[in-house]
Amino acid sequence: MELREKTTHEQDLFITIILKNWLLQVKRGKVLLDGISEDEIMKEVAPGKNRGIYIVGHIIAYHDLMGEILGYGKRKYPQLQPIFIEAADKSGLEMPGYAELKALYEDVHKHIAEQLEVLPTEQWYQRHEAMTDEDFKKDPTRNKLNVLVSRISHLAYHLGQLRLLK
Amino acid sequence: MELREKTTHEQDLFITIILKNWLLQVKRGKVLLDGISEDEIMKEVAPGKNRGIYIVGHIIAYHDLMGEILGYGKRKYPQLQPIFIEAADKSGLEMPGYAELKALYEDVHKHIAEQLEVLPTEQWYQRHEAMTDEDFKKDPTRNKLNVLVSRISHLAYHLGQLRLLK
Repeated sequence: MELREKTTHEQDLFITIILKNWLLQVKRGKVLLDGISEDEIMKEVAPGKNRGIYIVGHIIAYHDLMGEILGYGKRKYPQLQPIFIEAADKSGLEMPGYAELKALYEDVHKHIAEQLEVLPTEQWYQRHEAMTDEDFKKDPTRNKLNVLVSRISHLAYHLGQLRLLK
Repeated sequence: MELREKTTHEQDLFITIILKNWLLQVKRGKVLLDGISEDEIMKEVAPGKNRGIYIVGHIIAYHDLMGEILGYGKRKYPQLQPIFIEAADKSGLEMPGYAELKALYEDVHKHIAEQLEVLPTEQWYQRHEAMTDEDFKKDPTRNKLNVLVSRISHLAYHLGQLRLLK
């Protein structure tokens, strides 16, 4: 019994580390957005590059898909995909305003946190929904936990860009 | 015995996931630098912000410290710390050239990879060197694995900025 408890403990510890790092980046994003004005967010992060508003929408739309890859549910805001995932910035498609995007940022990440906190330990070690059983046999590191680690990098990457608006 | 083997396997799987994500970001950095010219790297990533050359040096200097936090050895290039960690960009301190920094990027990350690949599994779950035993008791997630996860975010954050030079 002692070994089994240790295994569970170590698994939980690892999941906790990843969840904490995820929540830390999400929080940093919120603090950053709280400090960026309506005017600033409409600017390009660098000359000729994406505008802040597009990057914020892109983060939300991309993370909103997480439930379909981790298997806990469908995207909540499918209307964001054509604007912020399928299209590049300045596509001419109408975007939600900054206040609405900030509210969606909170809502999408709150939903993710609620789902991830109750995801059973063993599920984290299963393949994600975008790959086959066969591929997973070849590479068992491509599990759901790995998806979250890659989302941490994705979020940090874009926060580094948004930071330039300050 | 079967439980113990499972424990080790699962621990190795966590570590493998984190190492793979780390190496992926390091590789992305190399590919990115290979595509940024001598002229481009001397530019600010956005008006009034850090220049590419400073960010590259900062990444190298920061990662060069990793051995002291993970306990596998001293920094290899202490001369980088005053320029890229203690000072901000445009401090007037002389910087290594881009070709030299690209070589250091390879060298520092090769050294880290060699050290991390042989770090024993149990060491990943120990406290890092910059915290006390007492603090670690309160929060066992602050282990060496957590340090590497936070370095992945740090690297991704700055790669998002360097990407704007292209």
